[in-house]
Amino acid sequence: MALIVQKYGGTSVGTPERMRSVARRVANFRAQGHRVVVVVSAMSGETNRLIALARAVAPSPRTRELDVVVSTGEQVSIGLLCMALDDLGVPARSYTGAQVRILTDSTHTRARILDIDAAPIRKDLDAGGVVVVAGFQGVDAHGNITTLGRGGSDTTAVALAAALEADECQIYTDVDGVYTADPRIVPEARKLDAVRFEEMLELASLGSKVLQIRAVEFAAKYKVKLRVLSSFEEDPGEGTFITVEESSNMERPVISGIAFVRDEAKLTLTGVPDRPGIAYQILGPIADADIDVDMIIQNAPRDGSTDLSFTVARADLARAVKVLEGVQAHVGARSIESDDTMCKVSVVGVGMRSHPGVAAKMFRTLAEEGINIQMITTSEIRISVAIEEKHLERAVRALHKAYGLDVAAE
Amino acid sequence: MALIVQKYGGTSVGTPERMRSVARRVANFRAQGHRVVVVVSAMSGETNRLIALARAVAPSPRTRELDVVVSTGEQVSIGLLCMALDDLGVPARSYTGAQVRILTDSTHTRARILDIDAAPIRKDLDAGGVVVVAGFQGVDAHGNITTLGRGGSDTTAVALAAALEADECQIYTDVDGVYTADPRIVPEARKLDAVRFEEMLELASLGSKVLQIRAVEFAAKYKVKLRVLSSFEEDPGEGTFITVEESSNMERPVISGIAFVRDEAKLTLTGVPDRPGIAYQILGPIADADIDVDMIIQNAPRDGSTDLSFTVARADLARAVKVLEGVQAHVGARSIESDDTMCKVSVVGVGMRSHPGVAAKMFRTLAEEGINIQMITTSEIRISVAIEEKHLERAVRALHKAYGLDVAAE
Repeated sequence: MALIVQKYGGTSVGTPERMRSVARRVANFRAQGHRVVVVVSAMSGETNRLIALARAVAPSPRTRELDVVVSTGEQVSIGLLCMALDDLGVPARSYTGAQVRILTDSTHTRARILDIDAAPIRKDLDAGGVVVVAGFQGVDAHGNITTLGRGGSDTTAVALAAALEADECQIYTDVDGVYTADPRIVPEARKLDAVRFEEMLELASLGSKVLQIRAVEFAAKYKVKLRVLSSFEEDPGEGTFITVEESSNMERPVISGIAFVRDEAKLTLTGVPDRPGIAYQILGPIADADIDVDMIIQNAPRDGSTDLSFTVARADLARAVKVLEGVQAHVGARSIESDDTMCKVSVVGVGMRSHPGVAAKMFRTLAEEGINIQMITTSEIRISVAIEEKHLERAVRALHKAYGLDVAAE
Repeated sequence: MALIVQKYGGTSVGTPERMRSVARRVANFRAQGHRVVVVVSAMSGETNRLIALARAVAPSPRTRELDVVVSTGEQVSIGLLCMALDDLGVPARSYTGAQVRILTDSTHTRARILDIDAAPIRKDLDAGGVVVVAGFQGVDAHGNITTLGRGGSDTTAVALAAALEADECQIYTDVDGVYTADPRIVPEARKLDAVRFEEMLELASLGSKVLQIRAVEFAAKYKVKLRVLSSFEEDPGEGTFITVEESSNMERPVISGIAFVRDEAKLTLTGVPDRPGIAYQILGPIADADIDVDMIIQNAPRDGSTDLSFTVARADLARAVKVLEGVQAHVGARSIESDDTMCKVSVVGVGMRSHPGVAAKMFRTLAEEGINIQMITTSEIRISVAIEEKHLERAVRALHKAYGLDVAAE
């Protein structure tokens, strides 16, 4: 008899058939005695269609009115899902963000939730019905419709779970959980029963698609129990719990998983004079050109000069080179070198904080595979290396094995 | 410096280009110093798309949720129109039915307006902005979204004009006014500067497409000045005023226009015993079969029996015959005769109430054209005849001329 908030994304409700399939899943949960609040996104493609329509009317639409238009996507979804539930004999009632009401600030297109009035929802649940709430939207203090920005439906679900003091918030998506590595690369990859939310964010090649960072932060703040499950499997299984607190009774593995990013490129400015502010003079113009820089390495200086290397997405390489050519003379660098064959491989785990041997094992494993490490960066829970992309799959598999991820931790 | 409520239907805002064209028209009105409130329908096709989506999810969707889904059509329109106005430098603010708020009863899909809070709209107008309101929708006392039924946007516009005590309510549509006859049949047909609303309703072949009856009734009740204009002409001209009160300083023509209905069929039950309740025994089952009966004639009885004739839409003839075959024996009728070549032509005018020669002129005109009249019915402001459809165009043109409609009345 738990109170569960379930969130279904756009692809999960993308067609009338899938809408009915979600209704059946919700009906099953209710039949098991649970009280269910469902948060839905717009049907896949709908938000983009509405934005394109707005752009066709006005090149840079007013954000207040953009929110009025775009929020209809979720409004259609809640109505349709309630119809589907009703068709299964399940009493259901839809709520727009304004109807709940989900009070936000007035920052249109990326509003922040300030307060949720959970009383009417509780009343409906007490009466035995299912409540269906539009994700992604709210209303400001003046009654204007607001939206929370892309992926805001996750945040709606977590915020509702917090306001309702729900037992659990389930995020249904097109993956069935968070894995130790991409199963397409590592057949032995296992689904994690639980993962720390910082780890999930670092397991980028899987994690960042699964849950919005804002939603996870919200869950951490309000101690909402979060779980990721598949909406496409007949039996969604147990999914993966996204935990925010160190659980004392859980023996955590040192490493939770191996992540990677393909299609990176490395740029090196050689013979850069070693003086204060030089990194900013080089990387400032790169940022101004809207190019994301990932790893940054500055060599130890020798004879008053140094080399500065950084990686960018391969698609940005040509533009980045052009920017560097503009600053080369100004900063007095000797040459610009670039390499477009790179990728990044990371080992991720909260446990590495208390296990100093983790990095050494990573370097030894790659050395044994004959893979040359070109750059290294570390964070508290992650060690990343830049290597040639042709070695990517071999590196990921070797690391997956070396850290014992092939076999389930007890 | 008038306060004007303008209503634009679905085809008027059917594409981004037309949306921008409506915005230019509104901007022009405002530039002339008028205060403008705009009511818009869903973009053409959108309401049907949403209903089809609902039916694909559940065969008979709950009406509360149908309103949630269908009302998004107008919500998209108000947002887009405001963006287009903003793009022209015109400050504009959109309101859903709930935001206004347009309070209705809780009869989903065909709710009735109970009250409108005009204060926030007045405030926006006082600040110099244009207000754009979603037609067709409202909100009940419990905050549920309601819709007024098809064509409800006209009613929204008239109700807003009444609540705001607007100087005029302008209905923009795809015709530029009400004509003395269909211009495709009678090239000499003239646009009427003004028409009584009862006349407009009777001028069905034109009028019923122009304005919803509910809206006209609302306008009559609250004495709203109503005008029909074209949204497709660069210069919409003066359109046609829909008047509800006899204006003393206006010399009304006896006849306002000639209307017609094609594709009618006549059914006759002969030798029906002349006893009380016989018409109900025949026409009751026809109504039960959802067949609309138009003209009904019962001959004077002779030798204790009579003939009963009535017209139906030609598409319903076969079904109507089947129904009559079922009742023929029961009522003791001699035979069933049918004729599927009929049409109906009407002369319409409030002035005929005080001019008894109108009917005689109609019959003489048709006689001179050699057109045989098969049935006659009259109302206070209309005389209709059933004739063979092959004579339709000749009859309409001859009547148009006979009543002097070819030349403008002083």
